[in-house]
Amino acid sequence: MYDEIKNKELHSLVEEKKFRLLRDELGDMNEFDVAEFMGELDAQGSLIVFRMLPKEAASSVFAFLEPQNQEHIIKSITDKELSYIIEDLYVDDMVDMLEELPANVVKKVINNANPSTRTLINQFLKYPANSAGTVMTAEYIGLRKTMTVAEAFDYIRKHGIDKETIYTCYVMDAKRVLEGVLTIKEMLINPDTTLLVDIMDTRVVKAFTTTDREELVDIFNKYSLIALPIVDHENRLVGIVTVDDVVDVMEEEATEDFEKMAAMLPSEKPYLKTGVFELAKNRIVWLLVLMISGMITGNVLAKYERAFAALPLLVTFVPMLTGTGGNAGSQSSTMIIRGMVIGEIEPSDALRVFWKEGMVSILVGIVLGAANFIRLIIMYPGEYMISLTVVLSLFATIIMAKIIGGILPLIAKKLNFDPAIMAAPLITTIVDAFSLIIYFQIAIRLLDGIKPA
Amino acid sequence: MYDEIKNKELHSLVEEKKFRLLRDELGDMNEFDVAEFMGELDAQGSLIVFRMLPKEAASSVFAFLEPQNQEHIIKSITDKELSYIIEDLYVDDMVDMLEELPANVVKKVINNANPSTRTLINQFLKYPANSAGTVMTAEYIGLRKTMTVAEAFDYIRKHGIDKETIYTCYVMDAKRVLEGVLTIKEMLINPDTTLLVDIMDTRVVKAFTTTDREELVDIFNKYSLIALPIVDHENRLVGIVTVDDVVDVMEEEATEDFEKMAAMLPSEKPYLKTGVFELAKNRIVWLLVLMISGMITGNVLAKYERAFAALPLLVTFVPMLTGTGGNAGSQSSTMIIRGMVIGEIEPSDALRVFWKEGMVSILVGIVLGAANFIRLIIMYPGEYMISLTVVLSLFATIIMAKIIGGILPLIAKKLNFDPAIMAAPLITTIVDAFSLIIYFQIAIRLLDGIKPA
Repeated sequence: MYDEIKNKELHSLVEEKKFRLLRDELGDMNEFDVAEFMGELDAQGSLIVFRMLPKEAASSVFAFLEPQNQEHIIKSITDKELSYIIEDLYVDDMVDMLEELPANVVKKVINNANPSTRTLINQFLKYPANSAGTVMTAEYIGLRKTMTVAEAFDYIRKHGIDKETIYTCYVMDAKRVLEGVLTIKEMLINPDTTLLVDIMDTRVVKAFTTTDREELVDIFNKYSLIALPIVDHENRLVGIVTVDDVVDVMEEEATEDFEKMAAMLPSEKPYLKTGVFELAKNRIVWLLVLMISGMITGNVLAKYERAFAALPLLVTFVPMLTGTGGNAGSQSSTMIIRGMVIGEIEPSDALRVFWKEGMVSILVGIVLGAANFIRLIIMYPGEYMISLTVVLSLFATIIMAKIIGGILPLIAKKLNFDPAIMAAPLITTIVDAFSLIIYFQIAIRLLDGIKPA
Repeated sequence: MYDEIKNKELHSLVEEKKFRLLRDELGDMNEFDVAEFMGELDAQGSLIVFRMLPKEAASSVFAFLEPQNQEHIIKSITDKELSYIIEDLYVDDMVDMLEELPANVVKKVINNANPSTRTLINQFLKYPANSAGTVMTAEYIGLRKTMTVAEAFDYIRKHGIDKETIYTCYVMDAKRVLEGVLTIKEMLINPDTTLLVDIMDTRVVKAFTTTDREELVDIFNKYSLIALPIVDHENRLVGIVTVDDVVDVMEEEATEDFEKMAAMLPSEKPYLKTGVFELAKNRIVWLLVLMISGMITGNVLAKYERAFAALPLLVTFVPMLTGTGGNAGSQSSTMIIRGMVIGEIEPSDALRVFWKEGMVSILVGIVLGAANFIRLIIMYPGEYMISLTVVLSLFATIIMAKIIGGILPLIAKKLNFDPAIMAAPLITTIVDAFSLIIYFQIAIRLLDGIKPA
């Protein structure tokens, strides 16, 4: 396997121009590792290595390269070399690549594709963002139900080499309407003369080109599939999505949710590759919104100026109260939002969530309240009423925070807003304001020398 | 496909005891959908449906059932029926199930397994938590390199039916030492007489039984695999992990990270199935820790009691300042932590992160500071020094927060702590305290009438 020692060895082979030895070493390596190694070389070194690869490995390695390496190679190789790579790449990998490249490079690629590939690429580039159409590939095995198992195997032998998966095959009629699916396993265990119509599975799980890619993840998870057929609205097969594409989608979607829940606009590119201005832009929007809501909390606080002018000690409990409220609320909202993403929780579970968060918050409130009370009577002996004020406020804040944190994401989903955006940041702000109101209202009622503002 | 209308129809068939019609409907359904439907029925109804299933579908449906349904069925069916299901299930699904069931039910299962299955189950139950050993399955196709393609296909026809995947086959010697891998595709496109040794790929990507399951996700992502062989420390093949198992692992790991980053102990079970006491327990630990650190922030505030007693207006800017600082810090920490999870960022990137977060925070600081300054001179005309104090504090807080948020997770990783735990909650607390110190130190220097405490 590929490791650091091997990596050093390869680098020195490049430096010492021992190309024959290098070529042998490359031949033993996995395509992904070759691509990673090329990424570590300068533009020229990376091109030398690329030219050294056997023809059949070149396009797999190419698909694994970073966009800037792909761009350099496209610009440097001949049209004939480029054309070979284009025809050998899967359409979905190709479209992913084109979306990253500058327009002039895209043009060179499209010009070197043969007409049918060009039509396919253009068609793929037109599907709505984040739809199944942009994730799917057109390279699948399509069979007819009148074929025998032996005929099907002949067909697969002839056409299977450049398909993304041959393990699930699709049976369709002359108009490409999807009629059934069939696995290689099923074909292998049946006699050669069996007709496909007798062994194909007509209970086809499928999705549409316009299906959101998040839904694809749910379907793969639910049915443990290797590949999913994608049809248009006339039920004609137009492509398939394979499980490895879905794994990528899953990771991207999870990353987007992490970003949204930390109050950022989701970024298209990985962190180290995103420019400073774009990073700043993605972060400023929400920080501005939250800053303004922080001002509202400040105004709430200002309303009780007289209270804390009379008893400045009161202010020192504010960070603990609002902080605990915010954390308690985010815990709940995070669980509910994630539960909705993985399909466990639905808006119709609102009552169960309400009850559960209510019970949990009472338990949490009792434990935290007790811990706080002990600390307060030690630190401020004799100040029982202040201690009681703080503990009661803490208890009420936790219950309020957990119920808002649990219910708000469900309401957002019900109203077709993105629950992830309603998460930690917004909830913290709401909880902050409410916890201050709770705190000072209790203080005004329990403590002498504090008059309502 | 399965939808709500169909679902209602099935329910009424059960209620009206139209079992013949029900059996026909079930025969047309996907195993997953049958399992979901059974989950909606009461214990007796679910058992009736289960008994109605054709023998070959029963164990797939069983594997998809929720633990409490599995438990009920295990308790209700005969030993012979149970024994059939046990031998038909994949070992990894079986082990997943046994880990959820109460001890007496586990005993009934183990007693009804045949001796070799029993040994296998016990062996699987012994691998360390979260290791590849607990995720892998023992049902793979193992071939010999001296076989021809035709012999291999014969073997697969005979033994492939109950293997989890037949699409990637493994070549091993008499001692089960792994020598190469081979896909069905490769075999199909080669003549029947070809020896496997001539077409197998010896560049095997593999993992050990003790490899952490998070690492498996990375390997699958990197190499786009359908299955990964798992070997022991003598390089003997003991099982394989298939991509659908890894998809589950990925989702569980992401959920754990969401929970940790929202200051919770990760839970084993989904939200709606977790008891109130367990939910409360998972949340209290961190809330207590953060409450105590909130008290520290309170003490910092108490040190400046004289400052805000003299100028109570100062306090009203505290929520906006600490809130913005906390949000700015969480944005950075979330991006860095997620970047490390998906393998993009390493602790060795610390300098790049430092530079990037520094630049981003200056941009963000300028925009937010300007917005705030405009608002302050409108709301508090004439109070230029207070406005300047707030804006300078905001700017410094954002830079401090983003650098701490960016660097702290990298330090955590370097010291082998879990960066997700160092995320939002801890960073917010640190940032809170620092932003108060920055604020009041600037205020003491710029504003008249405020003396150092």
